[in-house]
Amino acid sequence: MMNEIIAGADIGGTFIKLGLFEKSGQVIEKWQVPTEDVSYCAVLEKTALEIKEKTKRTGVRIERLKGVGIGVPGSIDSQGMLIHAPNLGWSMLNVKQLMKEYLTVPVFIGNDANVAALGEQYFGAGEGCASMVMVTLGTGVGGGVIVNQKLVSGAFGGAGEIGHMVVHPQELVSCNCGKKGCLEQYASATGIVSMARKRLVHALAEADETKEEAVSILQQFEWNAITAKEVFDAVKAGDGLACEVADCFGETLGRALSCVAAVTDPQLFVIGGGVSAAGEILLTYIEKYYRQYAFTPSKRAEFKLATLGNDAGIFGAARLVMLDCC
Amino acid sequence: MMNEIIAGADIGGTFIKLGLFEKSGQVIEKWQVPTEDVSYCAVLEKTALEIKEKTKRTGVRIERLKGVGIGVPGSIDSQGMLIHAPNLGWSMLNVKQLMKEYLTVPVFIGNDANVAALGEQYFGAGEGCASMVMVTLGTGVGGGVIVNQKLVSGAFGGAGEIGHMVVHPQELVSCNCGKKGCLEQYASATGIVSMARKRLVHALAEADETKEEAVSILQQFEWNAITAKEVFDAVKAGDGLACEVADCFGETLGRALSCVAAVTDPQLFVIGGGVSAAGEILLTYIEKYYRQYAFTPSKRAEFKLATLGNDAGIFGAARLVMLDCC
Repeated sequence: MMNEIIAGADIGGTFIKLGLFEKSGQVIEKWQVPTEDVSYCAVLEKTALEIKEKTKRTGVRIERLKGVGIGVPGSIDSQGMLIHAPNLGWSMLNVKQLMKEYLTVPVFIGNDANVAALGEQYFGAGEGCASMVMVTLGTGVGGGVIVNQKLVSGAFGGAGEIGHMVVHPQELVSCNCGKKGCLEQYASATGIVSMARKRLVHALAEADETKEEAVSILQQFEWNAITAKEVFDAVKAGDGLACEVADCFGETLGRALSCVAAVTDPQLFVIGGGVSAAGEILLTYIEKYYRQYAFTPSKRAEFKLATLGNDAGIFGAARLVMLDCC
Repeated sequence: MMNEIIAGADIGGTFIKLGLFEKSGQVIEKWQVPTEDVSYCAVLEKTALEIKEKTKRTGVRIERLKGVGIGVPGSIDSQGMLIHAPNLGWSMLNVKQLMKEYLTVPVFIGNDANVAALGEQYFGAGEGCASMVMVTLGTGVGGGVIVNQKLVSGAFGGAGEIGHMVVHPQELVSCNCGKKGCLEQYASATGIVSMARKRLVHALAEADETKEEAVSILQQFEWNAITAKEVFDAVKAGDGLACEVADCFGETLGRALSCVAAVTDPQLFVIGGGVSAAGEILLTYIEKYYRQYAFTPSKRAEFKLATLGNDAGIFGAARLVMLDCC
């Protein structure tokens, strides 16, 4: 059939991002709608309707739609069953089956961070690279593992959950997941800010009040105004305290990624998510420790910043369809 | 063609293990020869000759040989090039190409620990399980990662090198690889013995000499007679010091495997190698900590002891051929 098209959807708690693509992966149109009602019926129906209407409006007959890929913020098992999506309140859903009510084409589903990795691998920073691991540094730390161009989903939907590798077993503070010492506690935006605040409190308490010298650039900010961006801006300005935070971030993430390399030995690591806006300096800190901890053959892996930003999800969702249908 | 057969070879510094198999994987014959001359010419020629002669002697025409799989103790890159095999002194060899001098059938090559994992996955403890990680606890710690029935070799031949994950970054003693704090330093036979000796020295120095109570069952052995077997026998007898060693072994390996699960989320972990002769008690110590450290979905992974022993390599080598040719 000529001119087949593909749809990709990235479902989030605030927005549903969508894209229509040529079979080759070229974008026809991309857009987003507010999620509003997060019940699964409402979200899936809205997703299907949006795809149908946009297809119509772009003058493409719906019969030309070859498949729909969907990224969901939850764990998906090897059978494509959604086990749990905490932010949406969804559990044990056969999304593929449910989507059949609204669309008669094949539906492919994946974890959102995994799917974003697939997008970066094929359309973004990982173009031409068959074996890649992406790490998304946002409020949390997500990941996606690509081996031979394909996504590794895992037996229980836990593949790529790099943020929950225990990297500091002696940690006393709990991660959101209930364990202690997860990578996410040091490498997420939240983790970076928390490390900076701790050091700032300590340094201010130790500081000699008679001296006028500032402890750190960061002390000029309101407590709640310190974000990962301010921390890495301070690193760029040569601030000692901020550099200590960046070093701890780099040691923890670089070491964790060296452990990832001992498992699938990727050709490339792609660093994405909000924190990656800090730029190349981030890679400097990660690579320094990665090269120190990695086993000899894997030291050759490259590091790049993600290039697709928030669109990685819809691109990856389209790629899920391409891999199975095209 | 009817009655096609497959050969598998597991090349080691002391022995070359070999097997002839039906296309289905059923064993026709398995045998081994001493390696003697470890130069690559000698080893590859001997391997080819052994396969040819055995084929002849079992009354099968050599034309029926469909392919040869070979496991080598070294790192193999994604193009099938052998990068480095330290124990054999081989570097940068195109084994596939070299074997063509002696045999005109397709040749498949893999790292020995990776290939053994493939053998266990298809013929041994992992039968029927598409996603598995095997850990080989011997003099060192090796591993193999299987995703969707296929071996993950990695971009630079470093996949499955679980023994060189840095698990105790604060360690002061160096691993054979030059880094400090590798899993191999705590979970190999050598590592277990070294932990037991350290604790024994310490306990004997601290012991009250006026009391006749023994510090540990292990003190009855000559220094060089303590092996991982004696340590786990002492654990079974309830020896306190040996149990501490087993606990440290379990904490380190269980935590490392929880990190592996955050990457590929296997359905099953298979524990093999000489140390696994200790039996089910080994799994108790590993699983206790694995369940503590693993991210929720991956906690469901199973643990089993390897079942093929030293034959895993030739079975896996045959499987390499089956995956590509059959």
